[in-house]
Amino acid sequence: MSLTRWLPAAGWLRGYGREDAAADGMAALIVTIMLIPQSLAYALLAGVPPQVGLYASILPLVAYALFGSSRTLAVGPVAVVSLMTAAAAGQVAGGDADLYLAATVMLALVSGVMLVAMGLLRLGWVANLLSHSVISGFITASGILIAASQFKHLLGIPLHGDTLWELAASAAGHLDAFNPATALVGAAAVLFLLWARGPLKRLLARTPLPAWLAELLAKAGPVAAVIGTTLAAGPGGLAERGVAIVGQVPGGLPSPTLPAFDAGLLGQLWLPALLISLIGFVESVSVAQTLAAKRRQRIDSNAELIGLGAANLASGVSGGIPVTGGFSRSVVNFDAGARTPLAGVFTAGGIALTALFFTPWFHYLPKATLAATIIVAVLTLVDPGAFVRAWRYSKADFAAMLITLIGVLAAGVEAGVIAGVAAALGLHLWRTSQPHMAELGQMPGTEHFRNVRRHRVVTSPRVLSMRVDESLYFANARRTEDAIYDAAINRAGRRHVVLLCSAINHIDASALDSLETLNRRLADAGVTLHLSEVKGPVMDQLQRSDFLERLTGQVFLSHYQALETLDPETTRRASCKLKVTS
Amino acid sequence: MSLTRWLPAAGWLRGYGREDAAADGMAALIVTIMLIPQSLAYALLAGVPPQVGLYASILPLVAYALFGSSRTLAVGPVAVVSLMTAAAAGQVAGGDADLYLAATVMLALVSGVMLVAMGLLRLGWVANLLSHSVISGFITASGILIAASQFKHLLGIPLHGDTLWELAASAAGHLDAFNPATALVGAAAVLFLLWARGPLKRLLARTPLPAWLAELLAKAGPVAAVIGTTLAAGPGGLAERGVAIVGQVPGGLPSPTLPAFDAGLLGQLWLPALLISLIGFVESVSVAQTLAAKRRQRIDSNAELIGLGAANLASGVSGGIPVTGGFSRSVVNFDAGARTPLAGVFTAGGIALTALFFTPWFHYLPKATLAATIIVAVLTLVDPGAFVRAWRYSKADFAAMLITLIGVLAAGVEAGVIAGVAAALGLHLWRTSQPHMAELGQMPGTEHFRNVRRHRVVTSPRVLSMRVDESLYFANARRTEDAIYDAAINRAGRRHVVLLCSAINHIDASALDSLETLNRRLADAGVTLHLSEVKGPVMDQLQRSDFLERLTGQVFLSHYQALETLDPETTRRASCKLKVTS
Repeated sequence: MSLTRWLPAAGWLRGYGREDAAADGMAALIVTIMLIPQSLAYALLAGVPPQVGLYASILPLVAYALFGSSRTLAVGPVAVVSLMTAAAAGQVAGGDADLYLAATVMLALVSGVMLVAMGLLRLGWVANLLSHSVISGFITASGILIAASQFKHLLGIPLHGDTLWELAASAAGHLDAFNPATALVGAAAVLFLLWARGPLKRLLARTPLPAWLAELLAKAGPVAAVIGTTLAAGPGGLAERGVAIVGQVPGGLPSPTLPAFDAGLLGQLWLPALLISLIGFVESVSVAQTLAAKRRQRIDSNAELIGLGAANLASGVSGGIPVTGGFSRSVVNFDAGARTPLAGVFTAGGIALTALFFTPWFHYLPKATLAATIIVAVLTLVDPGAFVRAWRYSKADFAAMLITLIGVLAAGVEAGVIAGVAAALGLHLWRTSQPHMAELGQMPGTEHFRNVRRHRVVTSPRVLSMRVDESLYFANARRTEDAIYDAAINRAGRRHVVLLCSAINHIDASALDSLETLNRRLADAGVTLHLSEVKGPVMDQLQRSDFLERLTGQVFLSHYQALETLDPETTRRASCKLKVTS
Repeated sequence: MSLTRWLPAAGWLRGYGREDAAADGMAALIVTIMLIPQSLAYALLAGVPPQVGLYASILPLVAYALFGSSRTLAVGPVAVVSLMTAAAAGQVAGGDADLYLAATVMLALVSGVMLVAMGLLRLGWVANLLSHSVISGFITASGILIAASQFKHLLGIPLHGDTLWELAASAAGHLDAFNPATALVGAAAVLFLLWARGPLKRLLARTPLPAWLAELLAKAGPVAAVIGTTLAAGPGGLAERGVAIVGQVPGGLPSPTLPAFDAGLLGQLWLPALLISLIGFVESVSVAQTLAAKRRQRIDSNAELIGLGAANLASGVSGGIPVTGGFSRSVVNFDAGARTPLAGVFTAGGIALTALFFTPWFHYLPKATLAATIIVAVLTLVDPGAFVRAWRYSKADFAAMLITLIGVLAAGVEAGVIAGVAAALGLHLWRTSQPHMAELGQMPGTEHFRNVRRHRVVTSPRVLSMRVDESLYFANARRTEDAIYDAAINRAGRRHVVLLCSAINHIDASALDSLETLNRRLADAGVTLHLSEVKGPVMDQLQRSDFLERLTGQVFLSHYQALETLDPETTRRASCKLKVTS
């Protein structure tokens, strides 16, 4: 039990059979084919040599297979994390290529340590501080930034910058470097890839092929594009026409090494590493949960933290870049029938073989092709619909989303995410600081009490019924106190106030003070304060104070009981209404 | 109407009669006698010349009388605000006395502008971000700091520092400066004042004197101490024995002037000014509300902001220090029968006469006496009981209180308050991020559903009833989703989950996503999700999304209705129980 808790692999390895191996092997083959161009492309996006992308797809997969809790999650380099890596490393490295590589490795190691630590301390909930609005604003902005940055390779124009404006400015400065041949290859690749994931996919879906195979062939688009454009650039001689190619990719496996510890570098990189960890984790765990649910498997978010942390540590020691669970490759892995994380180990083997023997084949691979695969991939990240839905559903969420989007595009990924999180927290506090309150009346013929503004109800001349739709805490305590006091004294003849507490989940010390003040102020005004339907936990807490002794009125189990006691006539009349009318 | 809104004085001045004048005049006389030593003492505490304390008790009272909404609040220099003033001015001035005075005036003006602006923008609620725990931790810490700082005058030892440690260190360095005569005067004054507010007060209470007069005579202790020790220092010749005296106090009224605007100074002082404004406002408004309630009068917190802002602007232009409503003097004013703010105007007149004609009388007043009055006054601020109550009532509030206390004592007033506010917000978010959840069962013989852990209830084998005691938002969305999912699938035979939403006051976009995921995950697991007792505002919001179409189950008006529909047998049996047993 405890072993499987710390090493989930111990669980599924028991009773691992031949069919499992067959299924995992098949899935691994498919994912490998898909992962090769992705690894090269995201290495390009992260600004590191292509082989580093391959390295990040070998040991990390094995590490995740041992410690992760998802059966089918496929980890490796992904677009958003690679973008954040490039931004952070570019900041610290300036122009120094060695320092840049050291920074990416440091980022992988630090976020690995952070993720493992969060997992051991069971801090998975910290990731929840990233609201979905902030994440979705961030993802859309990243998609735009990534696509924009790739025009560098697509048109042969050198671009630099971490914000949209910086990219636009540097593009304007280098228009002369435009290379028609490169643009041709890029445009062809983009169009082909769009065709492959659109019309071709629908075409294949109508064929008698099994769904997963049709899906796979559509997903194989990038591979086809790689082969086609490589042939065009090499044998086809486009490379001589100035089409930038990947060039010499050193073969062989990464030699595990620990970089020299650099406190200064750590000081500059801990924050980006933290954001990379959190965002990578949130993305990964949501994919894992979606897939796990389909087979009624469970995801332990703390095991996930340790699994992803181990993967990043493995990536770091093998000279790679930060990794996390990728959406599309995980879905392919799942659909292709992967049963256990061994599929990931087999995939790692496939990538290792590629790194050992096939790197020469990438020599003539045009960078424009990789850029095209990136752009087509990240276009799916851009989701304007999310903004429309947020606007319709909740202005506060829309605001947080927009602030994140603008922040990321205008000030870079870090500033944008931080601004978004701050905005989300602030808006939440602001909203809970002005709770919805309702004066209640009795629904005729029932024992239910509802908002006088929404329902035709019976109210008592002597008793004010109020409901506060919020936990009472310091940010809303005084406002609530004043609102109830004003409502109580604004009409003569009011002798009692009954506060319906069914929606009050906490009462903190400030709110307790306010309740005591309200009790005293109402007493001075000759009005008695009662409570009804106080929750168990809240009642336990109130009993640890002397409020209940000081309370001028009583605490009633149900609101109906309270009104029945304080104003029998009205209440009885209201309860009878139905019998009269029916 | 609109005139009295902006100028409350216009309201009560109408129909102001002779008895009003008599009552206000009497109260003013008493408050004046009380305010003179306080003004001198808090000037000493704030580190400014004594006459500045008098200036801060003239125009500000008139300004508040015009714009404030409380009939009986008495404004002027108070201990806590004077401490904050000294800390902030000391920071910027170093040793420069002129710069120090300029800083205190700037603090008064800036917090005046801030308060008026907050009042006009109706931002009174911002003050609610200071939770009562933070304030009470801050007040206790201030009391300790103030008392500690006054040993300087009480023992004749020069002390410097804004934290307890700094004060202790500087005391250790100057023990040789100890002056026996000064210590004698100080000790005598402290003992006398303690006797006056303790035994003497009880003694007077037993006499046939009217309560307010007895109260007044007890409150006159400081005046007696001033007179006694002044005679001892002057005619008694203690001044020659090295007892520090107030010395030459320039007579006359303040000449209203606006200091030259200094952006640099403003940059250093805006934060302390903001804290002074907020804390002064919170203290003042709670006193005003307590007193107003006794006469069924209302306090408009935005009018209070403008009133206090005007008072601080008036203090600034007359070369004074930041002011706010004082607790003890307001109570005396109220008990002595003040009816309208004109009592404040009369008091201002009294202080003005003092500043014009009586300042020579203060020449031989020992600083030790003023220090003694300060120490005895602030001892009432130190409230260990608050910590005990907080510990018993809520550990989170206790933590915020303790963090503020330690922060203020160890790092100064600003750092302490900011740390406390941050802690309070963080703890609130942390608590709402892990909501209380309960599996529910039907109370036999009723239509009520309660926590299975707290009550003997009937549960359905096919339907899981869950209640979440928190609004659903990004910080708790995923946790709630997982908890409900786990509870739903952890027992075979479960076909339905009904989520009782009576305690859910908001559902933000993240929580909506989680509900949709939960709905999908449960569907994949063959379980249907239903909602019951969804609040009006929440339902409105849900209807603006497409969640309700996607929901596999239904939305029931009452939880009973849900169970009656989904598992009639169990529900009917449970409802009948009573009839069977009775």
